[in-house]
Amino acid sequence: MTDGRKPLDISSALDPKSVAVIGASRDPDKVGSIILQNYVSSGYAGKLYPINPNADEILGFKAYKSVLELKGKIDTAVIAIPAEFVPKVMAECGKAGVKSVVVVSGGFSEVGNTKLQEELVKVADKYCMPTIGPNCLGVMDPRTRVDTLFLPTYKISRPEIGGVSFMAQSGAVGSTVLDLISGEGFGLSKFISYGNAAHVDETDILEYLIKDRETKVIVMYLEGIKRGKDFFEAAKRASRIKPVVVLKAGRTSAGIKAAHSHTAALAGDYEVQEAVFRQAGFTIAEDLSDLLYYAKVLESEKAPKGPRVAIVTDGGGAGVLTADAIASLSDLKMAEFSNTTKAAIKKTMPPLVNAANPLDLAGDAEETRYSNALSILSNDDNVDMLIVIALFQTPGADSKLASKLIEYKEKCEKPMIVISIGAEYTETHKKMMESSGLPVYDSPASASRALSALYKYYQFRSSR
Amino acid sequence: MTDGRKPLDISSALDPKSVAVIGASRDPDKVGSIILQNYVSSGYAGKLYPINPNADEILGFKAYKSVLELKGKIDTAVIAIPAEFVPKVMAECGKAGVKSVVVVSGGFSEVGNTKLQEELVKVADKYCMPTIGPNCLGVMDPRTRVDTLFLPTYKISRPEIGGVSFMAQSGAVGSTVLDLISGEGFGLSKFISYGNAAHVDETDILEYLIKDRETKVIVMYLEGIKRGKDFFEAAKRASRIKPVVVLKAGRTSAGIKAAHSHTAALAGDYEVQEAVFRQAGFTIAEDLSDLLYYAKVLESEKAPKGPRVAIVTDGGGAGVLTADAIASLSDLKMAEFSNTTKAAIKKTMPPLVNAANPLDLAGDAEETRYSNALSILSNDDNVDMLIVIALFQTPGADSKLASKLIEYKEKCEKPMIVISIGAEYTETHKKMMESSGLPVYDSPASASRALSALYKYYQFRSSR
Repeated sequence: MTDGRKPLDISSALDPKSVAVIGASRDPDKVGSIILQNYVSSGYAGKLYPINPNADEILGFKAYKSVLELKGKIDTAVIAIPAEFVPKVMAECGKAGVKSVVVVSGGFSEVGNTKLQEELVKVADKYCMPTIGPNCLGVMDPRTRVDTLFLPTYKISRPEIGGVSFMAQSGAVGSTVLDLISGEGFGLSKFISYGNAAHVDETDILEYLIKDRETKVIVMYLEGIKRGKDFFEAAKRASRIKPVVVLKAGRTSAGIKAAHSHTAALAGDYEVQEAVFRQAGFTIAEDLSDLLYYAKVLESEKAPKGPRVAIVTDGGGAGVLTADAIASLSDLKMAEFSNTTKAAIKKTMPPLVNAANPLDLAGDAEETRYSNALSILSNDDNVDMLIVIALFQTPGADSKLASKLIEYKEKCEKPMIVISIGAEYTETHKKMMESSGLPVYDSPASASRALSALYKYYQFRSSR
Repeated sequence: MTDGRKPLDISSALDPKSVAVIGASRDPDKVGSIILQNYVSSGYAGKLYPINPNADEILGFKAYKSVLELKGKIDTAVIAIPAEFVPKVMAECGKAGVKSVVVVSGGFSEVGNTKLQEELVKVADKYCMPTIGPNCLGVMDPRTRVDTLFLPTYKISRPEIGGVSFMAQSGAVGSTVLDLISGEGFGLSKFISYGNAAHVDETDILEYLIKDRETKVIVMYLEGIKRGKDFFEAAKRASRIKPVVVLKAGRTSAGIKAAHSHTAALAGDYEVQEAVFRQAGFTIAEDLSDLLYYAKVLESEKAPKGPRVAIVTDGGGAGVLTADAIASLSDLKMAEFSNTTKAAIKKTMPPLVNAANPLDLAGDAEETRYSNALSILSNDDNVDMLIVIALFQTPGADSKLASKLIEYKEKCEKPMIVISIGAEYTETHKKMMESSGLPVYDSPASASRALSALYKYYQFRSSR
């Protein structure tokens, strides 16, 4: 728990060759059984060992009375049994050579049972066995098909493979954001819910995600920070390698009080923490929705050459609102189109299209008008980033437009994001674009703040 | 166009006994035909007269060569013909005694055709015939089934009957927000898209909505304000009668420039306008998404007795974030529970539930635990408003919980809103609650800002 210790290696929990599920039973509603079932239905390719003293077979798998029967054969163990039995079973894991443990069981510090939690830590330390939890949802990786989440998929849909890794102290916040990530159609690298952080803590996980090559962006929801100095060291290294988005709960005295009664976390002084985050080059989120807004732009976009934004729109009003949103941010600017651009717009566009930024293509714009506009603007050296507003309520906007924007995104060398706002018809197209790596935003303000975060991050990178 | 004139009465456009659709034709893709079809499929009960010089019958209705054949029989005319013919046809409307006109055709000031627009205004004035538009989507009212929107319902779903009226200068912004309103499942009173505001302007519409008894909340998207003094007078009166939410485009110099090239509106100095809005007691939105956040809380909630908020949650982390969001707003406060409340919580709740605000009911909370908590808190005089966080990813949250919250909403005398965040499973329940008049928010920040807007509005009301 003190600063200066080496990171605990959790890689075996996320990419195990074999998994013991301790607490799986023949009752399919038990948490352990749901977890075992998850591994099966996600298509996990490694070995699965249900551990239960009272069963010979569970879900078609041979069950074992104890991990001790499987010495040297288990990479990671997922524990879902009543809290009081956890330390004993962990000791057995240690003896059996288990490399890491995920304790999903609750009933420790978060309900005042600090002694039991201390015992757990002692066992984890004794056997040098990195332990995630207790009181957590555990881990998920769509690539290795690891999935300890004991919540049914109809409640939380599981995301596709992607580049965003998300670590969350709170299980509920974790599952909520996971569900959102999947609902929006963008992909996940790793999900790590670490609950009470009794052994493995935020710094260990951060160190792991810095090294993880599949992780392009690190997103973290924190309640407390246990080893401030170590965390800060890791944080500074992290941002030089990949973007980190952080949402800290307990930013006000009311929040700090609430955080303490939640995971017994000492939230600490947010002003100090915020200064640390900034110095480390983190992107600071202020609300849950920010996490996704920032994550998706940072995952899919390259470095912008400068702060000048061009807006292309099929709705004049939405263009005006977006110009307002850009202009109200201190670091972004509205691009001034070059004369070549202006001439090209006049030449290729209908007469009512003004060669101005925002470039209002009018309500009857379809994919060809958009693609002409994007060709012109992507060649304009005065334009560093593109916001494309595609309102699918207008007559010309349909799946062909969405496809064209995806196609353009792939060849455009400048950061390019989309704003689309609306109900079902729009949602279908949003998901189509989002799952093809084109970030879509639901308002002028969120899109503008996302580009600002992108610009700030690469400013930070280039200043080091 | 000058201050001090009487409001133009547009009630006949929204509640007409008979409608002429000028420009309906046998080609079903023509704007006029789509509009006629809308009236038919929405179930409009009044008389419909298609006007077309080259047809005898359209969609089963007898067609007329000109409105002059129907003298005294038409309440309102919707005009969807090429711009150049509009003034002539409007003059015929005037002669035929048409009470109001909606010109959806574009091709006036917004493309530099100011002369033609001046002609249009002259005709409107000559016949004292309030004219909405040109270059607009027109009007919609789910009660009277008026629907001039020429966009298909698969692109813009139409909202249910409700209390929110929405006026928008921009057609695209209008249709986008309309689509959102319908997607979220809350109801609409009137929708008025007024485009170039050549004749009927924002002040006329505001005056109409102040008087309209079905309108509980007025939501406006403005680009320009034509008669500043008249507008301000109406605004001051409005807020004393019902809440008004305003989003003004053109708040920065970039936005002002953009607004001018959009509807030729002179956006004016936003600092002055903002001061006027504040003085009038308007709720000021800064982004499109704010319009809905504020509208729904103002529509469904009564006056809070004070600024003290209680949070009930099934996710500890979400509770902490919401406490942070409340505490960071200057006008709201976290409630301190009374001793009676604390004792009641200890008595009725499982031991791990702390009698603190946020009240964390734990991840296994189901409808009974929620309803116990809400019973206790609604009796606590230290609590003025309630935020209920229902994360449907947790094991205990399902349709029974949503129903229970709706039931509670109906009997609770304090303002009560919900936060639910997630993908499909959550969306289903959000829509269920929203359509029963229980406002649901997608983040701690938006929920908190909504309650702050509610509190501010009733503070304004009580201070007059």
